[in-house]
Amino acid sequence: MQQELVARIRLIRTASIGPVTYRQLLARFGSPQAALDAIPDLASRGRGRAPAIYAEHGALKEIEKVERLGARYLVLGQGLYPSALAEIDDAPPLLIVKGDTRLLDRPLVAMVGARNASAAACRFARQLAHDLGREGVVVVSGLARGIDTAAHDGALASGTIGVIAGGLDVFYPPENEERQRRMFEEGLVVAEMPPGTEPRARHFPYRNRIIAGLSLGTVVVEAAPRSGSLITARLAGEMGREVMAVPGSPLDPRAQGCNGLIRDGATLVQNAADVLEVIRPIGSGMVASPRGPYAAVSTEPAAEPDEGERRTIEDLLGPSPVPVDEIVRLSGLSAGAVQLMLLELDLAGRLDRHAGGKVSLQPA
Amino acid sequence: MQQELVARIRLIRTASIGPVTYRQLLARFGSPQAALDAIPDLASRGRGRAPAIYAEHGALKEIEKVERLGARYLVLGQGLYPSALAEIDDAPPLLIVKGDTRLLDRPLVAMVGARNASAAACRFARQLAHDLGREGVVVVSGLARGIDTAAHDGALASGTIGVIAGGLDVFYPPENEERQRRMFEEGLVVAEMPPGTEPRARHFPYRNRIIAGLSLGTVVVEAAPRSGSLITARLAGEMGREVMAVPGSPLDPRAQGCNGLIRDGATLVQNAADVLEVIRPIGSGMVASPRGPYAAVSTEPAAEPDEGERRTIEDLLGPSPVPVDEIVRLSGLSAGAVQLMLLELDLAGRLDRHAGGKVSLQPA
Repeated sequence: MQQELVARIRLIRTASIGPVTYRQLLARFGSPQAALDAIPDLASRGRGRAPAIYAEHGALKEIEKVERLGARYLVLGQGLYPSALAEIDDAPPLLIVKGDTRLLDRPLVAMVGARNASAAACRFARQLAHDLGREGVVVVSGLARGIDTAAHDGALASGTIGVIAGGLDVFYPPENEERQRRMFEEGLVVAEMPPGTEPRARHFPYRNRIIAGLSLGTVVVEAAPRSGSLITARLAGEMGREVMAVPGSPLDPRAQGCNGLIRDGATLVQNAADVLEVIRPIGSGMVASPRGPYAAVSTEPAAEPDEGERRTIEDLLGPSPVPVDEIVRLSGLSAGAVQLMLLELDLAGRLDRHAGGKVSLQPA
Repeated sequence: MQQELVARIRLIRTASIGPVTYRQLLARFGSPQAALDAIPDLASRGRGRAPAIYAEHGALKEIEKVERLGARYLVLGQGLYPSALAEIDDAPPLLIVKGDTRLLDRPLVAMVGARNASAAACRFARQLAHDLGREGVVVVSGLARGIDTAAHDGALASGTIGVIAGGLDVFYPPENEERQRRMFEEGLVVAEMPPGTEPRARHFPYRNRIIAGLSLGTVVVEAAPRSGSLITARLAGEMGREVMAVPGSPLDPRAQGCNGLIRDGATLVQNAADVLEVIRPIGSGMVASPRGPYAAVSTEPAAEPDEGERRTIEDLLGPSPVPVDEIVRLSGLSAGAVQLMLLELDLAGRLDRHAGGKVSLQPA
């Protein structure tokens, strides 16, 4: 058990192995150890240098830190790992959680919004979270300033889950330290990154996919155009989850993001009853199948590709990101074969994976 | 020409002959005079007393008043009568208009909303009307207080049409007299009722159908639940026209009506560009075919019904309003035959016509 966890940690903490690559390696090689063993060979077929595998002692140290924090791992595909999150293509291979994991078993709804939201919007979010909690819904948010904070506070008594961008022992923003510590005790805090990780800008979109992926639906309360909250909403939509938004006056610049979402098809919600009406048809815990890029990656094993096929794939790739779908279609090869070759290029450090299931080849 | 107009006025000003009955009479008898002549016979077949036909001298006096006002008639099915309005089943047989009738030839968009709207919403409406005007759109509204007034004012320079519930020489609310007089000169004012008619509560829904029926779409700005503006929006939707609403904060009670419309499928609009995007696909002057109750009434002539069929129809009717569709279906008779019998009952003073194409029979 411990051995397998160590292998999983080494795999996912290896630079250049992201959740999609991780999942494909496991699907192809059956166990994390077998995947680790296969990497050098795969990378050489991809005509690149094999990535430096994350060291065993690093993994052991991470496990020790997690235990010292009173936290635990949830492993994709095993035990308590939330099944709604497992549905998404780039599901985190490992979650590190501290608090009441039973909250994951109840209907989850995400609430996100602006860090600099108006006082009225924060009050509204707190009340909505409270009302949702009274109906048995667990509120998921990001432990950020503004709407996130209000949502957690409103739902603290009934159940709330905070997903953070850094490690569990890092408190960001600093004024939320007490809140995060309280949620260790009375709620649940979820991190994808190992303890000690300071959150960086690039971590937030990853954090956002977990918020959306855990939840039956995402409610956006007051968000500026092009804000992180809208990214979370977009991800939720791509995952086939419900996207809901609280409207505002066109005269209020802080309402533009939400009004835009509603124009684009999000459901207008004004209270907990509206939210419940939207999520109820899906049932408690059941989620719709993902559509869009999340549905595009198959994990079936494929036959060994030959040299001509490798050539074809490399010729189709370039510095501009293209959808994997399109490469499959243009190559005339099976999706499994294409993905195996992309995996090899990835492990050889030559492939970049982009949002929306796109890939590009690094210039030689 | 004058003779035919007199006959039309006598027909529609006859108590118990509404626009639907008028249209069916014309379709069946070809000319307004032939319809007038047929009424006693039809009413006796409907086993009731024939309605007192509106007197010729009354019609002549009305024409004189209209001329003295510098106004004119637009006749359904003739000349300048706006074709979008002619599409609806209960189109007014006659409109009395004063002002620039060329405005009817441009793309029309209705703007409606609360009489007691907030100052911010009125300012918003004025700006939206102004911006729509700059894009060549003519703004239609109801010359009421609040949003209507703001919409007319914003569009006065570019072109605006006021539809009023009473006669053209009646000014309601009184403080809008100067505005209405200005619109006689610089815009267009439309009335269904003859001069001298004081508007009553029951006139406003009729007025609202003209606002919706003239327009490619209706924009609702700040409306309370169960308000007249929402009736206009519902009518627009039933006519197959675009329904648009300006959102507001859930904390603002005056936003409830619009937010509810958006939840129910109206398009959220925040500015003139949003409105233009919605109405453009329909084209200028072209309107979608009506759906719902407006599509239910056929005007084809039908064969003479026999006694057994009359019996069937009377048995199917009762004091509760039922859709004409349903009577057609349950009777197994043709739509034309059913409508002819309903027409007879109507002229016999025994039938009531209700919203949504429903009818009921008066208790004996």
